[in-house]
Amino acid sequence: EVVRTCERYAVRRRPFGRVGPSDVEFLEGVMPGRVVAGEEEVKAFNVDWLRSVRGCSQLVLKPQTTAEVSQVLRYCHERNLAVTPQGGNTGLVGGSVPVFDEIILSTALMNHIISFDKVSGILVCQAGCVLERLNEYLEEQGFIMPLDLGAKGSCHIGGNVATNAGGLRLLRYGSLRGTVLGLEVVLADGSVLDCLASLRKDNTGYDLKQLFIGSEGTLGVITAVSILCPQKPRAVNVAFLGCRSFAKVLETFTTCRAMLGEILSAYEFMDEKCMELVERHLKLSSPVTGSPFYVLIETSGSNSTHDEEKLTNFLEQASASGLVTDGTVATDEKKIKASQRCLSHKSLWHGFLLWGLRERITEALTHEGYVYKYDISLPVGKLYDLVTAMRARLGQSAKNVVGYGHLGDGNLHLNITAESYSPSLLEAIEPFVYEWTASCHGSISAEHGLGFKKKQFIHYSKASEAVALMQRFKAMLDPKGILNPYKTLPESS
Amino acid sequence: EVVRTCERYAVRRRPFGRVGPSDVEFLEGVMPGRVVAGEEEVKAFNVDWLRSVRGCSQLVLKPQTTAEVSQVLRYCHERNLAVTPQGGNTGLVGGSVPVFDEIILSTALMNHIISFDKVSGILVCQAGCVLERLNEYLEEQGFIMPLDLGAKGSCHIGGNVATNAGGLRLLRYGSLRGTVLGLEVVLADGSVLDCLASLRKDNTGYDLKQLFIGSEGTLGVITAVSILCPQKPRAVNVAFLGCRSFAKVLETFTTCRAMLGEILSAYEFMDEKCMELVERHLKLSSPVTGSPFYVLIETSGSNSTHDEEKLTNFLEQASASGLVTDGTVATDEKKIKASQRCLSHKSLWHGFLLWGLRERITEALTHEGYVYKYDISLPVGKLYDLVTAMRARLGQSAKNVVGYGHLGDGNLHLNITAESYSPSLLEAIEPFVYEWTASCHGSISAEHGLGFKKKQFIHYSKASEAVALMQRFKAMLDPKGILNPYKTLPESS
Repeated sequence: EVVRTCERYAVRRRPFGRVGPSDVEFLEGVMPGRVVAGEEEVKAFNVDWLRSVRGCSQLVLKPQTTAEVSQVLRYCHERNLAVTPQGGNTGLVGGSVPVFDEIILSTALMNHIISFDKVSGILVCQAGCVLERLNEYLEEQGFIMPLDLGAKGSCHIGGNVATNAGGLRLLRYGSLRGTVLGLEVVLADGSVLDCLASLRKDNTGYDLKQLFIGSEGTLGVITAVSILCPQKPRAVNVAFLGCRSFAKVLETFTTCRAMLGEILSAYEFMDEKCMELVERHLKLSSPVTGSPFYVLIETSGSNSTHDEEKLTNFLEQASASGLVTDGTVATDEKKIKASQRCLSHKSLWHGFLLWGLRERITEALTHEGYVYKYDISLPVGKLYDLVTAMRARLGQSAKNVVGYGHLGDGNLHLNITAESYSPSLLEAIEPFVYEWTASCHGSISAEHGLGFKKKQFIHYSKASEAVALMQRFKAMLDPKGILNPYKTLPESS
Repeated sequence: EVVRTCERYAVRRRPFGRVGPSDVEFLEGVMPGRVVAGEEEVKAFNVDWLRSVRGCSQLVLKPQTTAEVSQVLRYCHERNLAVTPQGGNTGLVGGSVPVFDEIILSTALMNHIISFDKVSGILVCQAGCVLERLNEYLEEQGFIMPLDLGAKGSCHIGGNVATNAGGLRLLRYGSLRGTVLGLEVVLADGSVLDCLASLRKDNTGYDLKQLFIGSEGTLGVITAVSILCPQKPRAVNVAFLGCRSFAKVLETFTTCRAMLGEILSAYEFMDEKCMELVERHLKLSSPVTGSPFYVLIETSGSNSTHDEEKLTNFLEQASASGLVTDGTVATDEKKIKASQRCLSHKSLWHGFLLWGLRERITEALTHEGYVYKYDISLPVGKLYDLVTAMRARLGQSAKNVVGYGHLGDGNLHLNITAESYSPSLLEAIEPFVYEWTASCHGSISAEHGLGFKKKQFIHYSKASEAVALMQRFKAMLDPKGILNPYKTLPESS
């Protein structure tokens, strides 16, 4: 059983109202049959995917429409009942589960596509659409979602936007701050804010939607999203390479960025520990072994001949100059199909399998026991120094210290594993990891957000004037503080 | 002489303080020798580039540092003196000149580059750096600015960010909301908000900087910018094509997007009237004539052989299928240099000259007399219908009605010219143009902002709840309303 968050972290419940039978009755009237109150059924919604935090909500609501979300919030606002919005519950910082008895507002049934325009590539959909489903829908029409991440099979687009998810395609298609064109949001008092424009450009007044992107449900509940989707690339190639040192990983990046240019769509790195754990816990074997570092490079382009030529030139150069010591490539779809018949042929691995080695590291880590997760932005040259420093610092007290991530974005995922949660190990890690990051002017949360677990460390990355201003926005938009309390911002002083 | 804004539009001055000798003395103490108070010297700062609005400020301040801006605003806030921030004063909606006697805070002397990192491509600079200077600086290091626009020779990066400028490269590099990584802003009370991160990813709390992007100096004065710059493309090609109808312009776009894919960096269109005016007023001649519509296509890529092959394939297909009737191409730099010796050779026009035909339309229009400018986002298929409708509506009462713009972004620049300003012509245009746009769910300002001239029309593109929320943000950040008054938002009700 996961320890209750409020016990592990000694949080005090704020004086919100408590849900009583008349509340359940009212909410059942708003959405008959979609109010979940049974202890067993609610249980899964109270614990995060990492099994690291646990709340004790007794009520899960599953609205289907914006109007229902509005009614719920208007009621909760009046009654001073706290609410935790929840999408696919795949967050990594405890942002999507209650800390105490907050009502869980799930977007699970808000999963309709509202419109898709093939000329502009603009998709409008409800917040509860699963990322992978949206991508499948778009692929049929020759488009893709501008973001991709390991949790795609469960995560909701509303949650992606609420956490400003980064992921695997950011290097190519940019952040959600550029691709999200509009949002519909229900505010704390139940009023509906319609900023659901479907225009690539709109400079009429302040861009309100930006405030909700990355606010982790603390300023409003996102109910619908309008997003600009790129064309599906005709040719996708994946290379998986071994490098002798992190310096070679960096040099390979510089070379690859110059030679692959506009077709480079991902540059991921992982250390040998990551690959060891993926093999041990998930029984995945890698076609490339024996190197201390690995790199996954993806190209996406419109002309397979040109793309393969660029990639081949790059690989020849990287190999000839000793940047990479070993590698394998999965090229276009025809070859990928062929590869399913001859998987032993190293040069024809399926791109999907190569991606699996990278995407499933998070999952492999959970098999280790308890995972201390850090998601850091750093100047790219210093990216791995933090892993080395942490390994030296922790010595035998940690089971494993691994580093991987989106090197092209300057984003390190530092993970430390142990058999179980230990306050003394945590003390050895924090605040050291944050101090180290702050000394390099890095960010203590590149893409995961602050949620519950990181909120008290915001000062390592943000000036106190900035935090104070955030608190004023929170107070203005949610004066009673009912929306996802105990998250994102530290207590006001 | 340009008519004073307050007279033409019958605005009433709000009860701000009036600048007296003791104020000038204090400010002169803050920045000795950089307080401009002479009537003649102040004159140019009071009128916009289009000569369409005029204020009567008697004081221009030219701070060099953030600390000076902070001191100015703290003083003005205490004294209740209104302030209009001004960059290159190239705005098109009257946002950068005072309406009455607001103090002009010019960023002209805040023109230092603070840092540039060649690995990450992140530039940090003061707000008053001229866009073209920044681009030149970056090109020497193998990078470019992620935005480009006709006014590049005068506009300041701070003004670009304050107006969320779009421009010519948005199709490829996305909007400033994605490329601006950090801002330093001085708030109305003089406090400095440091959000000047130089990280590609940072999800620690709300993204405050977004509120200032596109707020036209009404929420704070941007003093420094951190921005992600793309690598300089090794190969740039420009094609200038003639199309028989707007339907062909659209079809050419779809074909070109599919065939040029990731190397397409601009798709601009203009009607024959535009070309007529560019030739008449600026004596520029076009290598392609006799078509009702023209298209400028730019490719930017890392491999000139591949890029030229893609472009050639596209041009052959477009020509064979009758999409385009005539055209010329400027290819890589070597050829461009050759072309300077043989400009008569149609197929070797300099890309710079082809771009000039498009970029100088705005300038050509100003030679007509008074210009009514509209900058509209529309579903791309309907983009030109508004020009046709307007031409039919106005008949002989307008001198010219022309349409051009960033077709790839769904952005039409509709311009109507007349010998001089006429209230009756204005009444024939407005609110018709806004109603038409709203009926297509378009935006009444795609990239120019609202400034002074468009603020009362915000309701055509934004829900009243959204406007009310904007007003609450304004009241929170600038309770006395001293920052760029009479701009962006309509009067609170």
